[in-house]
Amino acid sequence: MNVLVVNAGSSSLKYQLMDAGTREIFAKGNCERIGLDRGIFGHAVQGEAKVEEEALFPDHRSAIRTVLDHLSELDIAIDGIGHRIVQGGWHFSDSALVDDEVLRKILEVAPLAPLHNYGEAAIIEYCRERFPSLPNVAVFDTSFHMSMPAVASTYPLPREVCEKYHIRKYGAHGTSHRYEWMRAKALLGDSCHRLLSCHLGNGSSLCAIEDGQCRDTTMGLTPLDGLMMGTRSGSIDPATVCYLQREGGYTYDEVDDMLNRQSGLLAVSGISSDARDIRNGAKAGDERCLLAFDMFAYKAMTHAAAMIASMAGVDTITFTAGIGENDWSIRQAFCQTFEWLGVRVDRERNRAEVGGERVISAAGSAVTVMVIPTDEEYMIAKDVERLAF
Amino acid sequence: MNVLVVNAGSSSLKYQLMDAGTREIFAKGNCERIGLDRGIFGHAVQGEAKVEEEALFPDHRSAIRTVLDHLSELDIAIDGIGHRIVQGGWHFSDSALVDDEVLRKILEVAPLAPLHNYGEAAIIEYCRERFPSLPNVAVFDTSFHMSMPAVASTYPLPREVCEKYHIRKYGAHGTSHRYEWMRAKALLGDSCHRLLSCHLGNGSSLCAIEDGQCRDTTMGLTPLDGLMMGTRSGSIDPATVCYLQREGGYTYDEVDDMLNRQSGLLAVSGISSDARDIRNGAKAGDERCLLAFDMFAYKAMTHAAAMIASMAGVDTITFTAGIGENDWSIRQAFCQTFEWLGVRVDRERNRAEVGGERVISAAGSAVTVMVIPTDEEYMIAKDVERLAF
Repeated sequence: MNVLVVNAGSSSLKYQLMDAGTREIFAKGNCERIGLDRGIFGHAVQGEAKVEEEALFPDHRSAIRTVLDHLSELDIAIDGIGHRIVQGGWHFSDSALVDDEVLRKILEVAPLAPLHNYGEAAIIEYCRERFPSLPNVAVFDTSFHMSMPAVASTYPLPREVCEKYHIRKYGAHGTSHRYEWMRAKALLGDSCHRLLSCHLGNGSSLCAIEDGQCRDTTMGLTPLDGLMMGTRSGSIDPATVCYLQREGGYTYDEVDDMLNRQSGLLAVSGISSDARDIRNGAKAGDERCLLAFDMFAYKAMTHAAAMIASMAGVDTITFTAGIGENDWSIRQAFCQTFEWLGVRVDRERNRAEVGGERVISAAGSAVTVMVIPTDEEYMIAKDVERLAF
Repeated sequence: MNVLVVNAGSSSLKYQLMDAGTREIFAKGNCERIGLDRGIFGHAVQGEAKVEEEALFPDHRSAIRTVLDHLSELDIAIDGIGHRIVQGGWHFSDSALVDDEVLRKILEVAPLAPLHNYGEAAIIEYCRERFPSLPNVAVFDTSFHMSMPAVASTYPLPREVCEKYHIRKYGAHGTSHRYEWMRAKALLGDSCHRLLSCHLGNGSSLCAIEDGQCRDTTMGLTPLDGLMMGTRSGSIDPATVCYLQREGGYTYDEVDDMLNRQSGLLAVSGISSDARDIRNGAKAGDERCLLAFDMFAYKAMTHAAAMIASMAGVDTITFTAGIGENDWSIRQAFCQTFEWLGVRVDRERNRAEVGGERVISAAGSAVTVMVIPTDEEYMIAKDVERLAF
């Protein structure tokens, strides 16, 4: 089954055309700067070098049209299309085969993720128009977390406000956390019941997964909450938002922008939102980079403890995404803080520059620690296979 | 040494005249509805019944004047006055003997706690005018937390914003947490190094205390953050504030009021902010009260895990304040969630209806669990003794 996987952000689009059975990737690429000038279209066919060219993408429709035009030149039948949707809101506790009703619901919940859902819905609409007979499957970043118990998902605000505005913990990175669980369980079998999944990238979240069910996660109503990230503050006293408006004269949009785009590693280090720059700066003795690194590890650690408590313990920890897969120093700092729980990392295994799935805990560690590179595209392709055929 | 301890809130004032050495209390009372109509003045002299009378308190000065007028009728010399001050801001890492400079600083940091500091400063001013030769000592609810390391206190917002508006984690209940440490250490000696202090009342916070130093605490820039409380939401995604303004048309003052006064136990239960009502409702099977109780315990538990992680373990847990001292069911629910850390509560000891300091953990528990009724007034009196003489 050949599945086109479309993963659209607010101003970008990534795609892969893959065989959901063999995981063979026939083509992949990306559209950048959607809605802006000087767009870029990148395109790579299996076995060939990536081609980048200038393009203009006034909107998401024009981006997906360009992708489909290019793919039509290859001699590969597409059997279905999978779409990553950032926000499924209160409607979706699983991926869904798209019909008019599903599309209506994706738009209904869009105020929860206005920068994402509208563009993603536009892409689905275009795909349905161009290939009326092809199945489209929507795979939500939030649906995995809908299994969270009410104690974790409920916001303690007036009930009528929560109901009217659909306020609860939705979380994010659900497809990635689901993948981590699937692979950890496949690799570790009966010894894996309580997994702490650490998705650490430019956006970062933790998820407590007990026997396949989400018990809790660090992102909240929006992807701002939880860990400190590249440019996001993560959890801070919510009164800070009111305080900044009252004392600083900021509008709520300005505070929203500050907390989402000007905070986190970037704000503390003063130089970069990229963990690699922070690590290099810290190595060179830069005080602000040192603090940024330590804060990232500290906040990951304290949030991780909360996640572990939600499962009353942990037997497996997995790391994934840009930082989780590639930054041994963050993994080491994180794991060392849990030595009191019996976590022991093998220093050599952790530092070895190898890719792929690997155990990095030491023999005798009370917790199995692994690096499991995430593959959201594969999960999406499998959901298309499961729901459309 | 006879110390008058004054503890003023935004619209109330409590006082005690006590001997800082013997802890004997000569008189105590309270002024209610300061700044409102139908004020109440309560007054009790040692060995006599409490008297309540109507009064009018247009401001904090008039309240303290009434108190001092009444106390002047007793034949007890006052040697010093201790004032609880909610917010010491960035200036005070210890209590301070009041002079003009200290008073100026209390006013300078007042925008961080506008409902409290201005009134408290007015009380100090009045006391200094009326008794120019008496020492006044300001005891800050925040100063204990100034020993927190930077990884815990720093907010990952743009540095110039943090500096300009003095944004960091200040915490609260510092005098109570300090008292808990002092008593736990006195009672347990060398076996007490890493204390989780649980101040659970209408306002609630946890504090991680390692060898007398604050490692982290759950309240943040303001006392809204951390645990779910009687009417306060505690930690929620800070983007919720922007979302409510954008989608609901609320002003930031309205959201501030909602999160501080209309949320927490009150919002989830729909009936009361008082933990006793919630417990009774839960016992009677009311679904919303059950959820409120479970959420309170769950959030206390996950935040506690974060606090424990900040110390890389825990050897002592203390409970204090209205809920912590009196609600065995919350203590039991909380401790049971930590059985995976070796916490074992003695069911009988925990439920015994006795007051005073007591151990409630079972023999063989990996962690000593105690109830230690807090006494902020005593701490304040001791600080007057220490700093003024």
